[in-house]
Amino acid sequence: MSSLLNPQRTIAELKALRALTSDAHGAQRVAFTPTWMKARQWLRQKLETLPVETHVDAAGNLWSTLNGDSEKCLLIGGHLDSVPNGGWLDGCLNILAGLEILRRLNAQYQGRPPVTVRLVDWADEEGARFGKSLFGSSACAGQLNLNEARGLKDKDGIRLPDALKAVGIDFERVPDSSLELKNAAAYLELHIEQGPVLLDLGLPLGAVLGTFGVERHAITFHGQAAHSGSTPMNRRQDAFLAAAKMAPEIYRIAERSSGGVCTIGDCTTKPGIVTSVVAACRLTLDQRHLDAAALAQMLQQAKAASEHFAHEGNVKVSWQRLWQIAPRPFHAELIALCDGVIRETCGTSHQLSSGPLHDAAAVAAAGVPTVMMFVQSLHGISHNPLEDTREAHLELSVTAFDLLAEKAMNWIQNKS
Amino acid sequence: MSSLLNPQRTIAELKALRALTSDAHGAQRVAFTPTWMKARQWLRQKLETLPVETHVDAAGNLWSTLNGDSEKCLLIGGHLDSVPNGGWLDGCLNILAGLEILRRLNAQYQGRPPVTVRLVDWADEEGARFGKSLFGSSACAGQLNLNEARGLKDKDGIRLPDALKAVGIDFERVPDSSLELKNAAAYLELHIEQGPVLLDLGLPLGAVLGTFGVERHAITFHGQAAHSGSTPMNRRQDAFLAAAKMAPEIYRIAERSSGGVCTIGDCTTKPGIVTSVVAACRLTLDQRHLDAAALAQMLQQAKAASEHFAHEGNVKVSWQRLWQIAPRPFHAELIALCDGVIRETCGTSHQLSSGPLHDAAAVAAAGVPTVMMFVQSLHGISHNPLEDTREAHLELSVTAFDLLAEKAMNWIQNKS
Repeated sequence: MSSLLNPQRTIAELKALRALTSDAHGAQRVAFTPTWMKARQWLRQKLETLPVETHVDAAGNLWSTLNGDSEKCLLIGGHLDSVPNGGWLDGCLNILAGLEILRRLNAQYQGRPPVTVRLVDWADEEGARFGKSLFGSSACAGQLNLNEARGLKDKDGIRLPDALKAVGIDFERVPDSSLELKNAAAYLELHIEQGPVLLDLGLPLGAVLGTFGVERHAITFHGQAAHSGSTPMNRRQDAFLAAAKMAPEIYRIAERSSGGVCTIGDCTTKPGIVTSVVAACRLTLDQRHLDAAALAQMLQQAKAASEHFAHEGNVKVSWQRLWQIAPRPFHAELIALCDGVIRETCGTSHQLSSGPLHDAAAVAAAGVPTVMMFVQSLHGISHNPLEDTREAHLELSVTAFDLLAEKAMNWIQNKS
Repeated sequence: MSSLLNPQRTIAELKALRALTSDAHGAQRVAFTPTWMKARQWLRQKLETLPVETHVDAAGNLWSTLNGDSEKCLLIGGHLDSVPNGGWLDGCLNILAGLEILRRLNAQYQGRPPVTVRLVDWADEEGARFGKSLFGSSACAGQLNLNEARGLKDKDGIRLPDALKAVGIDFERVPDSSLELKNAAAYLELHIEQGPVLLDLGLPLGAVLGTFGVERHAITFHGQAAHSGSTPMNRRQDAFLAAAKMAPEIYRIAERSSGGVCTIGDCTTKPGIVTSVVAACRLTLDQRHLDAAALAQMLQQAKAASEHFAHEGNVKVSWQRLWQIAPRPFHAELIALCDGVIRETCGTSHQLSSGPLHDAAAVAAAGVPTVMMFVQSLHGISHNPLEDTREAHLELSVTAFDLLAEKAMNWIQNKS
C-alpha cells in the first residue's frame, strides 16, 4: 500500500495551509474566524476530489465519510483550528494525514474499503477564544456542559451562542452532534507530542497510553507576620518556610508515582515585604497521572506533606480545588496495534502518556475505543510559531498512522 | 536617690501625652506636624520648671541642658515623634524617663550634678513622612547624606527642605547640628523592645548590645518555562524548586550564626501560572547581625547555598543588593553598667541585640560611647495602637535607667 500513500504530499499540503492561514506571527486559524473558515474551505476542496460525503454537524464539526462494506466506522480526527500565533502542525497534521489515508484507501479499495472510514475536523479544539477547549468533540461525546458553555464570553464580551450563530450553528442544537458517533468502532488521532519525551529518547514516534487526569489546587500556608529584625528565628511562624520545605517533597511524590507529574506553578506571599516574616504563602499545585488511583494517591500524599510541614513549622494549611478531570486511558488493544505499527515503521517504539488534553480524550470518554500516535516535537515547543518537527519524522508519522488505520479496520472487522 | 525619683509620674505623663496627641487610631505625633509641635510645647512647659537651658538645634532636635561641675556631657535621648496611628511608648518613654532623671538630678545635686546632663528629643526618628528614619540624629552625628535628603518628597510631593522651612528649619544649615555633640561623653537611650525576646524570657529589662547590621538582597533563580502536563520531572529546570530548596538552608545559616536573623519576605514567580513550570523565581532576603564579620559570613553562605541549589537544579541564580547598613555595636563598658543596674533593679538581666534601628545607632556611629536599655513589649507589637508594656515594667525601667544615668556620670568622671 505504501506506493499509494504519499507522505511527501502531506508535508506539501501542511506548508500550503501555513501559507494560506498564517501571518508573520504564526498560524491564525482561531475557531469560528474567517481564517479558520478559509482553512476549512481549502480542506473541502481537497475532499471534493474523493468519493466522500462531507457535512458539518450540529456542533460545527466537519465530517467526511468514505463508505465501506461494513457500516461500522473507523474515525480519524484532528482540528484545523489553532491558537493565535500558533504553529504549523498542531491539529492539522492529523487532518492532512487523515486526508492522505482517505486517498490511499480510495485508491486501494476502489472507493469502498472493508469498513466505513470517517475523517472529522473538530470545531474549536483549542478554546482560544472562549477559554474552554474541546468544544466540538465534547459536544459530540455528550460531555459538554451546556449551561456552562452558554455563559462563555470572549474578551470582547461576545457570547459563545452568538459567535456560533454567526457561523451558522444553533447553540441549542449542539448536542445533536452526538448522532455522529453512531456505529463508531474506533477512533485514531495523530498529533505532535508537544513535549520532550520522544526528543530525549531520539525516537520519531510513540504510542499514547491516554490523557492524564488532572488535580489542580491552591495550597495556602497561614503563619504570622513578624518584624524581620526583632523576631528571633525560633519565635517565627513562617508560612513561606513551610511551603518551601514542602516543595521538594511534592516533586518526590511525582517521582515515586510511576509516570505522574506535579508542578508548583505559582507562589505568592503576604504581606510580601522584605522586612516581614511571611504571614501567608499561596502555591498552585497541578498534579497529573494516567491512573485514577495513582492520581488520588498523589493528591493524598501532597495533602499529608502539606500538613506535616505546616505542623513542623507551627503554621496552618488550607486547600482549595481549582479544577479536576479524570484520566482517559486509551484502548489496550489499539495501543498494542499502534505500538506494533511504530515498531514496523521505525524499529523502536515508546509508550507515553499525554499531558495536554486532546479531542481523543472526549471521544474515549464517550466509550469509543481510542488511541493516539505522537510524533516527536523539536524544542518541546508548541502553541508558538517555533513549533516544528523534522520532515523525515512527519513522513514516518503519516506512514505509520496509515498502517495503523489499516490494522484498525482489520481489528474492527474481527470484532464483528 | 529613689525617693527623689517618681516613676509613677512618668507613667502619668505618658498617659497625659497620649490624651493630648492621639485619636481613636493611635498616636499622631508625626514629625513636623502641628500635633508633634504640640507635644514638644507640652514637653517644654515641663522643662521650664527646671533650671535647664532649652533650644532647638539646626536640625530641629530639642536640647535641654542641666549644667554640671564638668563640661563633659551625659546625653539622654529619645523622640516624641511617632508613626501615624502609633503607640503610646515608642520614643516618648525615653523622653519622659529622661525628664524624670533631670528632676531627680536637680533635686539631689541642687541644680548642679557632677557632669553636665543633656536631654535630647531627636527630630523625625520614624521617617514616617519622608521614608527616611533617624533624620535629626543622623544630621547631628554627621551621617546624613544631604544630597539624598534634599530630594526626599512626601506623598503629597512636598520636599523635605520645604517641610523643614515651614517649621523654621533651614535645610542647608542642618549639618550645624553636629556642634551639639561637643563634649558628649556618653549617650543613653531607653526604649521598648518592639520584639518578643524579653517577653519570652519573662524578664522586664535587657541591656542592648547594639543595632544589627543589615544586608538586603533580591535573589532570582532563572529556569525554563515548560508545560506542566507534557514535561517529565527529570526534564525540568524549575526556578521555584531551586529557590524552595535553598530556603531552609538560609534559615539554618541564621541559626548557626550566633544571634543573626535571616528572612525571606517575598517570593514571586514567572510566568506564575498553574500550567507552567516556574521560569523565574525572585526572593527577597533580609539578613541581620550585630557582628560585621558574622554578617558578611551569613551573606557569603547564602550566596554559596543559592549557587549550590541552582547548580543542583540546573538553573542560574543572580543577586541584586537592595540595601545595607553596618552593625553598630554599643560600648562594652556601658553595656556592663547597664547590665549591672538591671540586675540591681530586677535580679536578672539579659543582653540582646536590636533589630530595629534607633537614634542610638547614629550617635554610636559618631563615636560617642553609647548604650540602650530595653523594656519588655507585650505581644511583640509596635508601630500600632496596641503597643503596650506592663506598668510595673515601665516603673522598673525608669528606676533602672535612672541608676544607669548615675553610674554613667561616675564612669564619665572616672575616665577624665
